[in-house]
This record gives sequence, structure tokens and C-alpha cells, in this order.
Amino acid sequence: MERVDIAIIGTGPAGISAAITATIRNKKILLLGRKELSSKVSRAQEIRNYPGFPAISGEELARKFNEHLEAMGIEITEKRVAAVYAMGDYFALQAGEEMLEARAVILAGGVVQGKPLDGEEEMVGRGVSYCATCDAPLYRGKTVAVVGYNPREEAEAAFLSEVCAKVVYFPVYDGETGLPDSVEVIRAKVTGVGQADGKRIVHTDGGDYAVDGIFVLREAVAPGQLVPGLQTEGPHVAVNRQMETNIPGVFACGDIAGTPYQYIKAAGEGNVAALSAVKWLG
Amino acid sequence: MERVDIAIIGTGPAGISAAITATIRNKKILLLGRKELSSKVSRAQEIRNYPGFPAISGEELARKFNEHLEAMGIEITEKRVAAVYAMGDYFALQAGEEMLEARAVILAGGVVQGKPLDGEEEMVGRGVSYCATCDAPLYRGKTVAVVGYNPREEAEAAFLSEVCAKVVYFPVYDGETGLPDSVEVIRAKVTGVGQADGKRIVHTDGGDYAVDGIFVLREAVAPGQLVPGLQTEGPHVAVNRQMETNIPGVFACGDIAGTPYQYIKAAGEGNVAALSAVKWLG
Repeated sequence: MERVDIAIIGTGPAGISAAITATIRNKKILLLGRKELSSKVSRAQEIRNYPGFPAISGEELARKFNEHLEAMGIEITEKRVAAVYAMGDYFALQAGEEMLEARAVILAGGVVQGKPLDGEEEMVGRGVSYCATCDAPLYRGKTVAVVGYNPREEAEAAFLSEVCAKVVYFPVYDGETGLPDSVEVIRAKVTGVGQADGKRIVHTDGGDYAVDGIFVLREAVAPGQLVPGLQTEGPHVAVNRQMETNIPGVFACGDIAGTPYQYIKAAGEGNVAALSAVKWLG
Repeated sequence: MERVDIAIIGTGPAGISAAITATIRNKKILLLGRKELSSKVSRAQEIRNYPGFPAISGEELARKFNEHLEAMGIEITEKRVAAVYAMGDYFALQAGEEMLEARAVILAGGVVQGKPLDGEEEMVGRGVSYCATCDAPLYRGKTVAVVGYNPREEAEAAFLSEVCAKVVYFPVYDGETGLPDSVEVIRAKVTGVGQADGKRIVHTDGGDYAVDGIFVLREAVAPGQLVPGLQTEGPHVAVNRQMETNIPGVFACGDIAGTPYQYIKAAGEGNVAALSAVKWLG
């Protein structure tokens, strides 16, 4: 795949704003995330403080964002980035078995609510995966567990059930699930993950489940986990007013860059991050 | 006048965004600036990177901002603030001969392009004024000079001509002026201001002009001049990521808080400044 100028990870207001401004500045970008945009945006009931829209539903604002992207010919690449590595004069973005390349990176993937699971961080790349599309081939004909943090992850579990011999789904939310019959839904609180006897273990308050692989599917990946060496402050990436991180060429914006979690703040920061990346590219 | 929770100085995207968010948070605000909104916004030909509006004229965006304010019942108070004084548990805002009071202040007045005139800073309050509406009564029946940085200041000069015996207008821009005949227009480059023999002097490359008072009318007042003791960085107010200045209770956002000068960045910062002010008010 061709090396782009700027890879933008995340399709909330921050990532979209960054993509728009970077495109206006004639940079070749890769906008990575869900086409449905951030679920936080589209789930918002009414947004009243995005200047220009007196009262707008999250769904409607997401539609307007999409129209803006379309008007500018910006496409969303539906890939989940598991890790970003600094390679000297460029960055390598691991998306499943694929490696994407970019000269600069803008992190706009939102903030991870809550802590990682017990044992999760130790098992990243060794049995814990964050991307069904990317890693499903590794578990062909095997048994996997999916810890799904929101109903949208059910589509991922359904996809895995087409590839794997067995999928066990642990919803981390209330309400009904709409999964194929082939997926076993376990209503138990997941307390951690681990390994034993060559198997991966999902620990729950209802007992342990042994599987071959564990998919932990959340809206966002913790930034320190995403980018080795990145300076963080709690769940956030440490940035200055120009949205620069401690790693030259890596910028962050939106919720991932700190509170307040607000649409217009995220959009504003995306703009600044893009302009800083443009400047950095020279 | 009643003391408000938050005085917001400036009606560009930053001030408007701050006003909207502060109002949603049930704070009593005073939004001070021009009703026509910032001329920088309404003069913009086409804005393409304000997410949600693929391509919008500055005029149209200004109209949408106004509609948003109207929908929320937010009014603009057309007063020009000449100085902000910290009074202990509140701030006093000098607007002409009137003193307004607020528990917190958000500076969103844009950035002053260029340097002050030679001698200007020394003469503030001693013959140099920034507000025709405020200070016209001081020059009833006298001669004043107006140094106008943009055509919108012509309305101020016209107003002064109704009060003063004589108005001499120095346009700091090209193009025609649309002033009453009673106003004398001098096409000369103003090089500085000073005093001599009890008169105020406008120095130009075409000679000196002696008057009783000098109005220097720009879009914005330099922040250090506006708020005594405020920490600045060149033409900008020094702020942290929460839009806090060095003075507790004073916040800044938009162009006045630094580059890049972008609508969406300003709107985002206005939101953050408002939430920081709300938090500070407790």
C-alpha cells in the first residue's frame, strides 16, 4: 500500500475535522475508522452547543459530517489499527496482518472508558486481539471468545462465527443481543483474561472459559497500548496546545487528548492537529 | 447593572461558542461585542473546514451563529470593553463611562493584527480612546481624529461627527469611504500619536494634525492593554489546555489565545473556556 502523508485514526468529530483540513491542505490522507462514525456521536440524543446547529441529533450531525466528507471526496477506510510503530522517517500502522504506512499520524480514536481487563495488557498480540476483521484468519476452525462492549460488536462476533468453529460472546452491556444461533451468549461479568495449558482463559464471575483466542472489542484502544512510547496522562495522550505528543510526527485530538468530552472541542482540536501535522511534514 | 456570572468579550466563533455552552450550563452571561459578529467571519469568502458545513460563506456562517444565539435567547450587548480589572471576588469591566461586573471573564476578542501605533500605549486613557460610543461625550463640541482600521469604523466616525465639532478620519485601508461630508478624510499614513501644547497630535507621513482626542478603532484591543497583569505571548494571551490564563477567573479562547486562526478551532476553544469558567465558579 502506498505511503500516505497523514494517517488519521478515528472517525469522530476530531478525526473528521483533521481529515477535512488536511485534505484542504493537499495532503494525502488515510482516514481509519468506522463508516458509521463514532457511535458516541450518532448515539447522542440532542447536541445544542455545536455552534451553527441550534439543536441537532447525534444521528443528524453524523449525517452532516458524512456529507462533508463526501463533498470533499474523503473516504473512510474501515480498518482497526492495533499498533503504531515509529520506523524512523515514517510510521507503520498494524491493521490485522496488514501494515499501513504514513509519514505522520493523528490519534483521534476517542477515549477508553474504564480500565483494561485484568491481564489484558500482558496478552496483547499473544491471544488477545482487538480486531475481528484483522485477526479472524488466525482462528479458522478454532474457538474464540468475544468480549463486546457495545451492541455494534455483535456484527464482529457474527463474522467470526463464519470463520471460527465456535464463538462465545460476553456482552458487557444490558439488553437483548441479536446474534446468530451459532454464537453462544454468556451473561457473566468478565473479570479478567489469562492463559493455562496452552489455552486462553476468560475469567468471569460465573467461572472460567478456555478458548483459543480472545477478542476484546471496544470503541477505542488505550493510547499507550496503541503507540509504544507515547506519553499518557491517565486515559489520555499528553499533548501541548498544538496537539503535539512526545513523539515527533504523532499528534492527538478529541477525547483521547483530554477533557472536556465535547463535539465542538474535538472538531476544533482536529483542525489544529491537522495543521500541526502539515507544518511538521514541511 | 446586575453582576453576571461570566462576561464574554467578543462575538466571533469563540465568544459565541462560549456563550452557548455557558448558557446551557445555566450561567448568567453578558456577551459583549458587535451584533454583526466578528467582521473576520462575515468577510470570509468560503469556509470549507467547519465540519458539518461542506462549503459556507462567512456571511452565511455568521447568520447561522446568530440563529443559534436567537434560538437560545442569547443577546449581544453592543459595548466595547476598554479594560478589565480584578476586584477580588469579581471583575469590573470598563465600557465607556459604565462599569460592568462579572464573576468570571472570557476573553474572545480576536487578535490585534500589527503593532500599536508609536506612542499609543502611553496615551491610553489620556487622549487615546478605543470606543466612540463610550467616550464621545468627553469630546462634545471639540475636534477629534479617528484612525479607522476597517470600513466598519466609519459608522463610529459618523456618530462622532454628530457630537463633536469636527472629525478628521484617517482610513488605514484602501478603497472608498462612505462618510458624511462633515467628516474630513485624510489619506495619509499614520505613523504615531503624541501630545504637544495641551493638544493631542496625530503624526502622519503628510504632516501632524492637532486635535483634542484620538480614537483608534480596530477590531480588537491588545490583551495586555485590556487586562492589566495578564500574561501574554506576543499578541496572544498565554493559556493552558483548559484555556486558563495566569489570572484566576480569566479565560481566553479563539485567535486571542494563539494560532492557528481557524473558525472551528476558535469555536472548540470557546466551549472549553466556558466549561472551565463554569468549573471555576463552582
